Amino acid sequence: MNQERIKQLKQEVCEANLALPRAGLVKLTWGNVSVKDEAAGVIVIKPSGVAYDAMTPDKMVVTNLEGNLFTGQLKPSSDLATHVVLYQNFPEVSAIVHTHSKWAVSFAQAGRDIPAYGTTHADAFYGAVPCTRMLSKAEIERGYEQETGRVIIEAFNKRQIDPNAVPGVVVRGHGPFSWGKNSKQAVENSIILDEVAEMALATELLSGGEIQPIPSFLLDKHYWRKHGKTAYYGQ
Amino acid sequence: MNQERIKQLKQEVCEANLALPRAGLVKLTWGNVSVKDEAAGVIVIKPSGVAYDAMTPDKMVVTNLEGNLFTGQLKPSSDLATHVVLYQNFPEVSAIVHTHSKWAVSFAQAGRDIPAYGTTHADAFYGAVPCTRMLSKAEIERGYEQETGRVIIEAFNKRQIDPNAVPGVVVRGHGPFSWGKNSKQAVENSIILDEVAEMALATELLSGGEIQPIPSFLLDKHYWRKHGKTAYYGQ
Amino acid sequence: MNQERIKQLKQEVCEANLALPRAGLVKLTWGNVSVKDEAAGVIVIKPSGVAYDAMTPDKMVVTNLEGNLFTGQLKPSSDLATHVVLYQNFPEVSAIVHTHSKWAVSFAQAGRDIPAYGTTHADAFYGAVPCTRMLSKAEIERGYEQETGRVIIEAFNKRQIDPNAVPGVVVRGHGPFSWGKNSKQAVENSIILDEVAEMALATELLSGGEIQPIPSFLLDKHYWRKHGKTAYYGQ
Amino acid sequence: MNQERIKQLKQEVCEANLALPRAGLVKLTWGNVSVKDEAAGVIVIKPSGVAYDAMTPDKMVVTNLEGNLFTGQLKPSSDLATHVVLYQNFPEVSAIVHTHSKWAVSFAQAGRDIPAYGTTHADAFYGAVPCTRMLSKAEIERGYEQETGRVIIEAFNKRQIDPNAVPGVVVRGHGPFSWGKNSKQAVENSIILDEVAEMALATELLSGGEIQPIPSFLLDKHYWRKHGKTAYYGQ
Repeated sequence: MNQERIKQLKQEVCEANLALPRAGLVKLTWGNVSVKDEAAGVIVIKPSGVAYDAMTPDKMVVTNLEGNLFTGQLKPSSDLATHVVLYQNFPEVSAIVHTHSKWAVSFAQAGRDIPAYGTTHADAFYGAVPCTRMLSKAEIERGYEQETGRVIIEAFNKRQIDPNAVPGVVVRGHGPFSWGKNSKQAVENSIILDEVAEMALATELLSGGEIQPIPSFLLDKHYWRKHGKTAYYGQ
Repeated sequence: MNQERIKQLKQEVCEANLALPRAGLVKLTWGNVSVKDEAAGVIVIKPSGVAYDAMTPDKMVVTNLEGNLFTGQLKPSSDLATHVVLYQNFPEVSAIVHTHSKWAVSFAQAGRDIPAYGTTHADAFYGAVPCTRMLSKAEIERGYEQETGRVIIEAFNKRQIDPNAVPGVVVRGHGPFSWGKNSKQAVENSIILDEVAEMALATELLSGGEIQPIPSFLLDKHYWRKHGKTAYYGQ
Repeated sequence: MNQERIKQLKQEVCEANLALPRAGLVKLTWGNVSVKDEAAGVIVIKPSGVAYDAMTPDKMVVTNLEGNLFTGQLKPSSDLATHVVLYQNFPEVSAIVHTHSKWAVSFAQAGRDIPAYGTTHADAFYGAVPCTRMLSKAEIERGYEQETGRVIIEAFNKRQIDPNAVPGVVVRGHGPFSWGKNSKQAVENSIILDEVAEMALATELLSGGEIQPIPSFLLDKHYWRKHGKTAYYGQ
Repeated sequence: MNQERIKQLKQEVCEANLALPRAGLVKLTWGNVSVKDEAAGVIVIKPSGVAYDAMTPDKMVVTNLEGNLFTGQLKPSSDLATHVVLYQNFPEVSAIVHTHSKWAVSFAQAGRDIPAYGTTHADAFYGAVPCTRMLSKAEIERGYEQETGRVIIEAFNKRQIDPNAVPGVVVRGHGPFSWGKNSKQAVENSIILDEVAEMALATELLSGGEIQPIPSFLLDKHYWRKHGKTAYYGQ
């Protein structure tokens, strides 16, 4: 293994994890970030049960691309298996964030997609952020964290949503996962996900239940001015 | 008395009290933490009416296990009698926190249990956080703080709730108490209690009144991956 | 005039004003605190239009008990006339706070009393915090700030509310005033007023419109354990 | 060009942009401020895609009054064309702020004006803050940012609203713009716009749908005690 690259990745993963409580998305130890490096053949993830103020790059945990741990390390975040499934099925994703941020969790608990009510949403998510179905008892018994990954994949496949265009999800009864091409993007998407969730609730309270998502041409405009080959926003 | 141990306990109780305003759970002087040490035969609790920025370990108040004060000290928190009743009836509890944190208070004022709508809740509370009944006029006249403890015990006994599995309550018209095996746990539970209360309100606003608690198999999974002999989360 | 006493009062009023943005109750320059000293024959109040970060004790404005300015000073807060009316009619009040804190303002805008839904409220306010009627066009033309004071007095007189037991009000369409025996108490009451207003809204959202104030015996207990001769809470 | 004046303007625009995240109105890079100087013949605006913690005066972008860039600079904020249209149609406006602040965005997403429910609103906005209509597909294709400016102008013209008396708007499905005679005023108006939006939502939740704007005589009183020749508030 390229030790210099591993060191960089640990630094990046540590910083990305610390960005979550700073952004107000994480209380206590609720949250984790991982980064995948295909070339280096590794996933680097937050250790389990380490307080944020004791988190240092050397404590980050390194696994191979199947999520198998190299020896002599702390235990990885329990949600590692979920991350592995997402990396295996979403090949362009190189970083994943999981939080219990309160507005995204509230949509997850209500079992609802987060509708694209405005351009703040459309700038980052090309359509509604989907909510998965509830895991079954059998799935939970078979392997909870892995099946959490699978129910996310199922939601994107069944509804033919492109995970690169909608880089986030809420897992029914649980909470949000978001992702990106790198940890900066994945963390930003977790911030945006929670912000648009809060705004969506306020929008509905102001609307008396008659609200529609923005028209597709406005969604298109905002998404495509920031993404893809014709992007001109914030470049 | 073991003076070294008392000194440690005062330090711990002072720090736990200071953690509450830092977590945004306490304004002004609304809140108190106590710790019980069975072996040392003492309860250590916040003094009454001392501002948080003037709080130092030496001001913490020491009583015996019946809540009787040793001489030459500040007045203890008025809620001491409530803490004593809880310690006497919940033998595994070694630390108690009381706050007026706003979302838990709102459930208390609405006279409602906090339902287990998701895994954030299930990670800490194995089922709904109960709301007690309103104290009667006679009870309040007989001894308000002690009866507050008793109405909590009654709620757990009548509904056969295990206080070790559901380490918190909201007292009708008043506010939350939470507890744990130590002050760190009790403080964390007070943070979680308020957070899940806020999320529960948002969940209901998003659901138009049709929301159900999470299924028991998901509750089981989340609670037991963090607690008991088979726990593997955050260990 | 006792220059030493005036200097003390200016210091106190300056600090009390600065406490408001620190408590999150005031944005921009929205808010003012005054203190009355009967013996010294003065009212000291925030100057008009001075930014909080430029506020120093020497800028505080001194008037006599009728609100007439001593020469050579900055302009007093526009709301001075309201404060004067309150001091003249509520003789035990020695400090007044006005803010546009958001939850109290929301009750004012909705034209609603803040009901006593729990003990957090009862600890400071012995019953609902009243909302005044709307000022008439004629009153506003006659002298807006003075009439604002009068409509507050009218609300307390008509409804026979004791301003010492209910040290706050929301003015219809405008916002809250609170008061106390000194600036510390008046500022604390402004914090509590906004906090119980926010909790009251959440309580109503959780209750589906069927909520009642707490019973009078619980209101009595909480109010009287903190106030009057038999108080034992936080002393 | 007067290089000394340009330097001043860049300093001012940089500081005004940095004030937005400090006031809690802007997350990530969502927001921009520009200033127009008629005499100097320039508009100075935030660059595109520069993080707030890397923002320095020398990175601010200078254009002529038609929004044409002088050479050798960073790319201007994508919203420049909107600002230019507003400057051309609102001749007394010398500074413009755009944010995605959450409560103003929620009104924009709900497609609703922000009603003048109280004096906090009336102190800054002489009547409801209008919400524009949704842009059409043709308009978006023709030139999204420019048409955003035009739909704002249309709203003010059609409804005969004076942009100097109502210095803000919410663009349907998008978010708020505010303005003023200078950047300090424009930033303050963006703070007030979001604050009154949040209060308006809370007011409606407390009112059960029966709420009316404040009477015109109270609106007049508050607006005119702060603005115009007869102003006496905060001067």
